[in-house]
Amino acid sequence: MKMRSDWKGCPIRFAAGEIGDAWTLVLLRDLMLKGKRHFREFLEEERAATNIVADRLSALVDAGIILREIDPARRNQVNYTLTTKGCDLVPAFLALIDWSARYDPETEVPEEFSSEYRADPEAMALRIIRELCQVD
Amino acid sequence: MKMRSDWKGCPIRFAAGEIGDAWTLVLLRDLMLKGKRHFREFLEEERAATNIVADRLSALVDAGIILREIDPARRNQVNYTLTTKGCDLVPAFLALIDWSARYDPETEVPEEFSSEYRADPEAMALRIIRELCQVD
Repeated sequence: MKMRSDWKGCPIRFAAGEIGDAWTLVLLRDLMLKGKRHFREFLEEERAATNIVADRLSALVDAGIILREIDPARRNQVNYTLTTKGCDLVPAFLALIDWSARYDPETEVPEEFSSEYRADPEAMALRIIRELCQVD
Repeated sequence: MKMRSDWKGCPIRFAAGEIGDAWTLVLLRDLMLKGKRHFREFLEEERAATNIVADRLSALVDAGIILREIDPARRNQVNYTLTTKGCDLVPAFLALIDWSARYDPETEVPEEFSSEYRADPEAMALRIIRELCQVD
């Protein structure tokens, strides 16, 4: 579902248009928390359809949330990585994980996650962003 | 798009299945930040299709994120309100708003929002949850 192009000015509309899609959230999780970088890796775990993964990656590239680059060491290999804009979604993802940990009986969040997050969510987000994006 | 029912155990999958949809995010914004409670109000601003709004509200009721109740004062009026589970999405929504404020040139977030959020996101989330859900 595409948001209307005249839905401008509202931050939730903007976020909904850029990442308001279940597959997009799962792909961002793979990049942010599972260290996945390659197209075939995104297909593995959830048995996602190739065209869906290709479509969502392409939209994320267009939105400047991820970067698509040829691997310098292996010229026929494409790497996907989060941009700074993508890394800055970490606080929202941590909040969603904490929410699911509270409300999904199936979700198994490690105790270390919950204790670190609930003690200081901002510090945890910064730690992960530093690791992901090598920024200060 | 429905997530596969065997996608269990991952908190981002869970959140993606429950709120990973652009219209759902916009409806939750209406309930959380715009004080909307009635079906016709959800249709107004974004010119959403009736069947989409009905479908998404119904899914949110099924997920226990919102409550559908007959208005005690006007028996032919239905009110939608956030449950505690729905109110507990506030931290994720604030994080998304802050992200959009950083990255969407069209987004106009009041300076009071950004300064309160960046000073102490947890305190701001708690303040809003208290107002929304009348909980301590």
